Amino acid sequence: MLNRVRWAVAHLVSSGGAPPPRPKSPDLPDAPSPQTAAPPEEPRSPPATAGSGSAAPAKTVEARASFSRPTFLQLSPGGLRRADDHAGRAVQSPPDTGRRLPWSTGYAEVINAGKSRHNEDQACCEVVYVEGRRSVSGAPREPSQGQGLCFYYWGLFDGHAGGGAAEMAARLLHRHIREQLKDLVEILQDPSPPPLCLPSTSGAPGSSDSSHLVGPQSCWSSQKEVTHESLVVGAIENAFQFMDEQMARERRGHQVEGGCCALVVVYLLGKVYVANAGDSRAIIVRNGEIIPMSREFTPETERQRLQLLGFLKPELLGGEFTHLEFPRRIQPKELGQKMLYRDQNMTGWAYKKIELEDLRFPLVCGEGKKARVMATIGVTRGLGDHNLKVCSSTLPIKPFLSCFPEVRVYDLTQYEHCPDDVLVLGTDGLWDVTSDCEVAATVDRVLSAYEPNDPSRYTALAQALVLGARGIPRDRGWRLPNNKLGSGDDISVFVIPLGGPGSYS
Amino acid sequence: MLNRVRWAVAHLVSSGGAPPPRPKSPDLPDAPSPQTAAPPEEPRSPPATAGSGSAAPAKTVEARASFSRPTFLQLSPGGLRRADDHAGRAVQSPPDTGRRLPWSTGYAEVINAGKSRHNEDQACCEVVYVEGRRSVSGAPREPSQGQGLCFYYWGLFDGHAGGGAAEMAARLLHRHIREQLKDLVEILQDPSPPPLCLPSTSGAPGSSDSSHLVGPQSCWSSQKEVTHESLVVGAIENAFQFMDEQMARERRGHQVEGGCCALVVVYLLGKVYVANAGDSRAIIVRNGEIIPMSREFTPETERQRLQLLGFLKPELLGGEFTHLEFPRRIQPKELGQKMLYRDQNMTGWAYKKIELEDLRFPLVCGEGKKARVMATIGVTRGLGDHNLKVCSSTLPIKPFLSCFPEVRVYDLTQYEHCPDDVLVLGTDGLWDVTSDCEVAATVDRVLSAYEPNDPSRYTALAQALVLGARGIPRDRGWRLPNNKLGSGDDISVFVIPLGGPGSYS
Repeated sequence: MLNRVRWAVAHLVSSGGAPPPRPKSPDLPDAPSPQTAAPPEEPRSPPATAGSGSAAPAKTVEARASFSRPTFLQLSPGGLRRADDHAGRAVQSPPDTGRRLPWSTGYAEVINAGKSRHNEDQACCEVVYVEGRRSVSGAPREPSQGQGLCFYYWGLFDGHAGGGAAEMAARLLHRHIREQLKDLVEILQDPSPPPLCLPSTSGAPGSSDSSHLVGPQSCWSSQKEVTHESLVVGAIENAFQFMDEQMARERRGHQVEGGCCALVVVYLLGKVYVANAGDSRAIIVRNGEIIPMSREFTPETERQRLQLLGFLKPELLGGEFTHLEFPRRIQPKELGQKMLYRDQNMTGWAYKKIELEDLRFPLVCGEGKKARVMATIGVTRGLGDHNLKVCSSTLPIKPFLSCFPEVRVYDLTQYEHCPDDVLVLGTDGLWDVTSDCEVAATVDRVLSAYEPNDPSRYTALAQALVLGARGIPRDRGWRLPNNKLGSGDDISVFVIPLGGPGSYS
Repeated sequence: MLNRVRWAVAHLVSSGGAPPPRPKSPDLPDAPSPQTAAPPEEPRSPPATAGSGSAAPAKTVEARASFSRPTFLQLSPGGLRRADDHAGRAVQSPPDTGRRLPWSTGYAEVINAGKSRHNEDQACCEVVYVEGRRSVSGAPREPSQGQGLCFYYWGLFDGHAGGGAAEMAARLLHRHIREQLKDLVEILQDPSPPPLCLPSTSGAPGSSDSSHLVGPQSCWSSQKEVTHESLVVGAIENAFQFMDEQMARERRGHQVEGGCCALVVVYLLGKVYVANAGDSRAIIVRNGEIIPMSREFTPETERQRLQLLGFLKPELLGGEFTHLEFPRRIQPKELGQKMLYRDQNMTGWAYKKIELEDLRFPLVCGEGKKARVMATIGVTRGLGDHNLKVCSSTLPIKPFLSCFPEVRVYDLTQYEHCPDDVLVLGTDGLWDVTSDCEVAATVDRVLSAYEPNDPSRYTALAQALVLGARGIPRDRGWRLPNNKLGSGDDISVFVIPLGGPGSYS
């Protein structure tokens, strides 16, 4: 997330005074106490096989939050220092000697080349057990009644303007997902279509009376079919929102600084759900073929959503910005001339006569990695950022940032996967310098050098991907074999094998 | 557009009193006087080869507006009566004896089976000459200076709640496009990139000073590249908006009743621009392959845009609607129970406790052809509808309807087209009962029965497509060969050959 927030850190509202009251909801898990990683913790016992966590007891809350690495790396104090070394940029992976990540998932990361004090990426890999909150019939659940659900979970969180949001998301987002799934435990295990309505009390009719519809509305003559899959998607979407709301509540407590992109994978009942909010990316490489599993949310890809919001709610622009887009900054002396512009409804460009308010700064400007919302931030979805203000202004940016992910679903049962089929997750540090095709080529090259049943091959692949994006120090920079600059950003990669859930779980 | 507006006709605000003042803009062409089609007009001379128009002098404005057919059909009074006969449903095409449509375009149409009094589809096919309004340098254009531009134009307009909007769009939309292109005549013919800024007076510097940028904003370090293509897209997008604004101004003058979907093709400088606002559809069939050139805009495909607008501007819901979506109507007795819902940011479903305001009617409801916005209209983009109200209410629906098209571009020069490669445009009367694949099969079957250089083959194909969607009268209905019901809607089809611009133009 290097360079993606400009002028932002200096303008974070510093928290003073007492923290605001924190409303409590049964849907919101408590924030667990931070764990220390030194001395290294054992990974939790299954089903929570490996947990992310924080590390290194530090003198201030800020420092603690900014200097944690995933617990599953099992870093010693010395290892933690090496992981935090901008000069060496040592690639970190879970030790080969310890307990493996679920499914023999491969993981590797490297810190940035010095642009932020600590590695602001965070990661989490968990097996999460969901106990049902209630039975569908509305009767209180008996302890003996039914089985809970397990889901596998991987998350990459790319922080900006501080590491707090990424660290908090890594600790808690899967718990929010678990909370959202609690109501669905029985429903998801019942092959019949989900009930549209759940009774509030035992014995009351639920969805069975849906045929008793009244009125002339022919558009209501039938009821919509809702799939189990769409319930899981809705649960993940709402979990992102609850996570973001929790960050908003706790932002003054020093716990949440900055914001983060979130790329999350949930495996549940045969399907892989990939939820992305930000500019990380997930692809499946299957038999050499590339299947995109996410898209990036940036000021360019979300231009029309941002402009529409500015158009409908001009007060959010504070008289400082215009929702119109221009291909370059307009100069005052150009007043009255005709300039190319795009409005919220347009994909093409047209000329308009420059008026006084067109001299305001555009809501969206720049191209590629330099594109910005309100001249400040280069991603448009993610968690946190509740304190983020426009440079030299009190104007909040958050209303333009959305916490909602796009969720794509991949049915693992529809294809017989081989050990070389993998789902690759990476923060933008990987993708800024590596194309999908180059990743697929690395997948092929590295995995073919290992036996198919060697569980260390996925870690080796993750390391190769991180190394390939970082490059080696040469000519006063980190350079790739083609002598182009490698990524100076934090880089984090998960490699999830798709052939093995049955054997590994 | 059969059945796509419910309860709407009865609730159109009837115009009384004097028409409102009509602001005049140099960008807006005057509405030309209606032409009469009886006695049949000759098609206009090239470059305006064939013009749409209105027909049959009638006793009231309403009747006139609702009872016109495209001029290029050259219908006699008797022909006009046959075209208006719901029982016979004779397929209409331009006469084989007259001047052909540009590019030997095929066209066929048929009236609905009785659901509206007249055929509410309209069509237009024109060759439009654009004279430049000014030179890029800002100097007044000399008569001898430079050449104008020609574009080929096809439009299908599927009216609802009356034929007025469709008839007006068929008469005027291409003139709005011409107006938008007037400023671009020189720019589009100049191979260098379009200037970002046009000087207001002769001699003033235009785009050349774009490097004199100030400020620390690195996102402005470069200027955006704007293509010629995106200028044409912008011109078409703005033309739709100006057309819609003209309808809004003239709605009380009895000239514009109802609304219409608009599907428009512009061929200009080697590229085909397909602009769609509504539920008509365009596909290219090229060497048997299907290339979608549009998508449909309905309450289902635009659910999230509609919900977002209702969420951000709740006053548009008038306390009568909720922006939340439910899979069926909630009954008051279900208050307090948990019901599935989708909010504007969600693609999945989740349960929520039913509160009082959830008992309001949902902004979006129903599925497929029965999906509706505010229980009223089944398309979400198009022109007109400025008088459309919610049933038994004064709540306007228009804010939820967008006049902006999606424009797709197809570069005709990137492929060597053969005479069997065609662009097929159809109103929903065609697509409701005919799949893309079935259309492609008919393309193959009909065209292979004609010599490649027989210019009547495209009309024969259009007729076959309309007949195939209409079916034949049997068992008290119009039925297809498979005995399923044919379309009872108005059906209109253009078949545009892609192999022949050079030879036909």
